[in-house]
Amino acid sequence: MTNLRIPGPTPCPDEILKEMGRQMINHRGPEFKKILYDITDKLKQLFKTKNDVFILSGSGTGGLEAAIVNSLSPGDKVLSVSIGVFGDRFSAIAKEFGANVIELKYEWGKAADVAEIEEVLGDNPSIKAVLVTHNETSTGVTNDLASISSVVKKSDKLLLVDAISSLGSIELPIDEWQCDVVVTGSQKGWMVPPGLAMVSVSEKAWQANIDATIPRFYWDFAKAKSYLEKGQTPWTPVVSVFFALNVALDMMIEKGLDSIIANQARIAQLTRDGVKALGLALFADEKYASNTVTSIAAPEGLDVLKLLKILREEHDTVLGGGQQHLAGKIFRIGHLGWVTEEDINMVLKSLIIALPQAGFEASR
Amino acid sequence: MTNLRIPGPTPCPDEILKEMGRQMINHRGPEFKKILYDITDKLKQLFKTKNDVFILSGSGTGGLEAAIVNSLSPGDKVLSVSIGVFGDRFSAIAKEFGANVIELKYEWGKAADVAEIEEVLGDNPSIKAVLVTHNETSTGVTNDLASISSVVKKSDKLLLVDAISSLGSIELPIDEWQCDVVVTGSQKGWMVPPGLAMVSVSEKAWQANIDATIPRFYWDFAKAKSYLEKGQTPWTPVVSVFFALNVALDMMIEKGLDSIIANQARIAQLTRDGVKALGLALFADEKYASNTVTSIAAPEGLDVLKLLKILREEHDTVLGGGQQHLAGKIFRIGHLGWVTEEDINMVLKSLIIALPQAGFEASR
Repeated sequence: MTNLRIPGPTPCPDEILKEMGRQMINHRGPEFKKILYDITDKLKQLFKTKNDVFILSGSGTGGLEAAIVNSLSPGDKVLSVSIGVFGDRFSAIAKEFGANVIELKYEWGKAADVAEIEEVLGDNPSIKAVLVTHNETSTGVTNDLASISSVVKKSDKLLLVDAISSLGSIELPIDEWQCDVVVTGSQKGWMVPPGLAMVSVSEKAWQANIDATIPRFYWDFAKAKSYLEKGQTPWTPVVSVFFALNVALDMMIEKGLDSIIANQARIAQLTRDGVKALGLALFADEKYASNTVTSIAAPEGLDVLKLLKILREEHDTVLGGGQQHLAGKIFRIGHLGWVTEEDINMVLKSLIIALPQAGFEASR
Repeated sequence: MTNLRIPGPTPCPDEILKEMGRQMINHRGPEFKKILYDITDKLKQLFKTKNDVFILSGSGTGGLEAAIVNSLSPGDKVLSVSIGVFGDRFSAIAKEFGANVIELKYEWGKAADVAEIEEVLGDNPSIKAVLVTHNETSTGVTNDLASISSVVKKSDKLLLVDAISSLGSIELPIDEWQCDVVVTGSQKGWMVPPGLAMVSVSEKAWQANIDATIPRFYWDFAKAKSYLEKGQTPWTPVVSVFFALNVALDMMIEKGLDSIIANQARIAQLTRDGVKALGLALFADEKYASNTVTSIAAPEGLDVLKLLKILREEHDTVLGGGQQHLAGKIFRIGHLGWVTEEDINMVLKSLIIALPQAGFEASR
């Protein structure tokens, strides 16, 4: 089997792929209703929230669009905290729908500066919401969301969180950290194919929703809520991914969230230690290095595209490249969802062979 | 196996379900690129179009939202032609995003009056676009789209078509009928699980797109086009449904579109003849009765909810009920996508037993 080590889609266990192949059912019948309620309950448990949870058919980016259009009105002042491609995307969505966006951008590879966020919030009392990426997939950096939340909540702002590649893999107790809208995606830590964005919506987010005038239809939380009350989704859902997610959540609950998070941390450490032992340097500030994706700075002489091609064609191993201005400058190893120590060891063994072929003499 | 006879999701052949269970791949790698290009080419063939075709991750309603937000600006005058729930939905989306909507509504069960459309277009030269449902799933009526198109095009308006439950099953040559944006969904005639909306976009629609100012991000056709050029989708696609659709399209092309359309017509006629032989009356005007879904008017004494429950629980047969004000007043038999004569005969046999139990004495 291909060692698919990109930060999503992740490989899926056989039990889950088997669910994907189940025959269709009526999405407005009793069987789907039970699945929808079961998944919603299990997600609340793993999200550590009593907030509403909705399962939207679409990608994580659709979930981010939903967070924006359900919470804001054109002209609303928002603070966007960006540390990479996905932070910039969240900001771009807010701008497209007419928000007045103040941007705090950090050097790629670094985490956001909490003191600076506090300062900007203090200087701009009319800010309504803060957009933040919990785990920046493009750079492999995890922001200190607990601290960011504490400054955002001190000034009583709405906190909209892109947790697409963190929730379920990295600590994020939604209620304790008072996150108002949190978005994740099925193809990340959940071991399921892409197709669903799962979002939580707080009471404060619902209050904002009442006044929010950005037009919305497909992504409308109010429609999701009214249909959920009758055990349905407003539009035809990606039924197969619901089947798969239901089983994946059982597996996760059986394993236990704390155990999953600890295991992700252990595998991430193994990855970081392993690449450093090859003489490579981490791209991300190690203090904030992500436990779901490791980014590696391309050393002098290394042809990243060539490396990725050799790994793919000769080692059946798929890693991620760099995005936008990081193309050719970093490569990334995904280790979220279904991943074992052996998967990472195989990547490291392949790197030992492929790195010199791509222009860099690895250690050992 | 359950005889799932709702108008989508439809049952899927084993070969297609097997594809759904395939392991994940990199959605930004060469294997996905090939699948995306293959599917796009095959869809163009079956859509009978040289227009751009995009595959959006979401439901058919997402595709309708895409048609609106990519083509219009707030305040644009549009004519909405509605003959049921889905026509009303298309209109509601346009209103939500700020269009100035003139509504032509027809009694549910009837088709639109082409002469009246022509008249309204003549009286309102500032109309920019016409929204029309080709096949109204809620009532089982197929509009005469060729004639509607000819009056829309005579006055050079943009024609946005909901063909979710018709394209691939009922004649709709997109280029010949000059349809500017056409939307369908994977779970309808395509024999594939839900998860994808497939849309075609004409040159005239692109011209409108340039001036259209409704905000858009997730559903943006321009983003879909620029990513398609590099063999990708802008956001993480529902990979599994792409696998399935690729195989389903091969099966359809092998069978031949004309043969599929003829077969759908034959099965639909069999269904209509069969229910009439039971002493039931069609709800739809038979002249416009749909070849993908048959709606049946509940006769005096029949408890529709009870009928559907008996069929589901005692005959493993799932039919559709009526939506909105048709709840309890009609029931619907879906016969699009993967369907055989035998499937319909089984429904009819079950009805013979279940109808009297639910209050109506069937003939024979």
